[in-house]
Amino acid sequence: MKTIRSIAEMQSYAIRQQMQGQSVGFVPTMGALHDGHRSLILRARDENDIVIVSIFVNPLQFGPQEDYKRYPRRLDHDLKALAASHVDALFMPSAQEMYPEGFATVVDVPALTKVLCGPFRPGHFMGVATVVAKLFEIVQPTRAYFGEKDFQQMRVIGRMIEDLRMPVRLVACPTVRERDGLACSSRNRFLSRRDRDEAVKLYQALFLGRELVEQKIMSRSDRLAKRLTQVLKTIPRVRVDYISVVDPVTLEPMARIRRPALIAAAIWIGKTRLIDNVIVP
Amino acid sequence: MKTIRSIAEMQSYAIRQQMQGQSVGFVPTMGALHDGHRSLILRARDENDIVIVSIFVNPLQFGPQEDYKRYPRRLDHDLKALAASHVDALFMPSAQEMYPEGFATVVDVPALTKVLCGPFRPGHFMGVATVVAKLFEIVQPTRAYFGEKDFQQMRVIGRMIEDLRMPVRLVACPTVRERDGLACSSRNRFLSRRDRDEAVKLYQALFLGRELVEQKIMSRSDRLAKRLTQVLKTIPRVRVDYISVVDPVTLEPMARIRRPALIAAAIWIGKTRLIDNVIVP
Repeated sequence: MKTIRSIAEMQSYAIRQQMQGQSVGFVPTMGALHDGHRSLILRARDENDIVIVSIFVNPLQFGPQEDYKRYPRRLDHDLKALAASHVDALFMPSAQEMYPEGFATVVDVPALTKVLCGPFRPGHFMGVATVVAKLFEIVQPTRAYFGEKDFQQMRVIGRMIEDLRMPVRLVACPTVRERDGLACSSRNRFLSRRDRDEAVKLYQALFLGRELVEQKIMSRSDRLAKRLTQVLKTIPRVRVDYISVVDPVTLEPMARIRRPALIAAAIWIGKTRLIDNVIVP
Repeated sequence: MKTIRSIAEMQSYAIRQQMQGQSVGFVPTMGALHDGHRSLILRARDENDIVIVSIFVNPLQFGPQEDYKRYPRRLDHDLKALAASHVDALFMPSAQEMYPEGFATVVDVPALTKVLCGPFRPGHFMGVATVVAKLFEIVQPTRAYFGEKDFQQMRVIGRMIEDLRMPVRLVACPTVRERDGLACSSRNRFLSRRDRDEAVKLYQALFLGRELVEQKIMSRSDRLAKRLTQVLKTIPRVRVDYISVVDPVTLEPMARIRRPALIAAAIWIGKTRLIDNVIVP
């Protein structure tokens, strides 16, 4: 596996692949790789000639009070995982390489960032859209792989690709869960053992929500949110940012639940923020 | 010359050229072509295997009170001019094709749009950056040609290319002027004969400004602006939006004039807005 730190080198490697007619699968990550990332990489490996993974903890998508500094970094572990997954190239630029002095461009999809995590993380999705737009220019992928756990992020990127007609196909991959149902996340590492055991209630609440909608027991979002909040409140030291029901394409909130629907939630357990979602098909 | 109205067709034509190793020169325009456009096209013709010109009056870069509807459209004239310049392909999408329902992405360079035309045309450069980013994805140019008359636009695009590492080279081309010095502009057509004769004073004022700085007669922007405003005020029915001295790279205003400097102005004559600039090297 080639490890590349310079943008110029990554871009010329990518353009060379393209000129040789090789398809490129791209998995952008912030490292601290887990089974969710692995599933994206396996799918990329399966569908493309070349697989490129990036590891870049993107400062632009963290708010000033957020966990940029303490976000987990596990480079040795990640390198082993990538080599074992037969990744062709790892792109690992520094923050200075990605955002040199004078950097001033923003890419944003304001209409999709007024809901769900948007109001709780101002500027977050702008940071995501900007870095992904830049990574796409550098890596020139045929296909890019994103997990549905970060559903809103996936929709923002999808909208950006479609609106700007970027010549890349977004491949949405199902959320990978641990045995008990908790969605894989690099931030799960922050949880104490006890908190980790309680965290599964986030998934259980969403699962219950899907049942209640599928069984037509509940059809109003506000009632559903209230019911699921009761479940979440049994987690010690929990704080609920939101629990919302939205249209899975436009992300517009639904007062009366129509299907398909996305039930999404964000909670804090102590100092760790967790998100998850389920689709009611 | 091929005329293409569909994005999909344009993109596949462009990608075909690229795969065949052909360099593509791209000149994005809003039509109503004049000698300024012609000079961009000739240069693109000279430096590339393939030349693509777009004509698209971009609604996103006009404010609600601006002249989108009455912006000059001269398709017959333009088609002749393009054929005579041996352009390979004309890309001419509809507004519906470029901005279908649900379009929601913005590209912007806020730091460069707080000065000069920015405050007078809120959203204008965001509209420019967004459409150019999209046109680049569609046309995949090797080089893109912009005129220095729209100096701020050129800087915004240049910053965007550099920041996002778009694989395209911006080629800045000198302002083309009519015999008396007035910068070529599609909007010159709006001027009555009498106003047209007076309009040259915009260039004369800037030319005088350059002299006063080069001869070290004036070194403070506020005094220079005051002096040049006196010249502009002799135009009947004139309104001065601004006359500013800024750093030609960062566009930061200079109180005390250092060189190189950009002296730029925007004025209204009746209902027609004109811009121009000179560099003091």
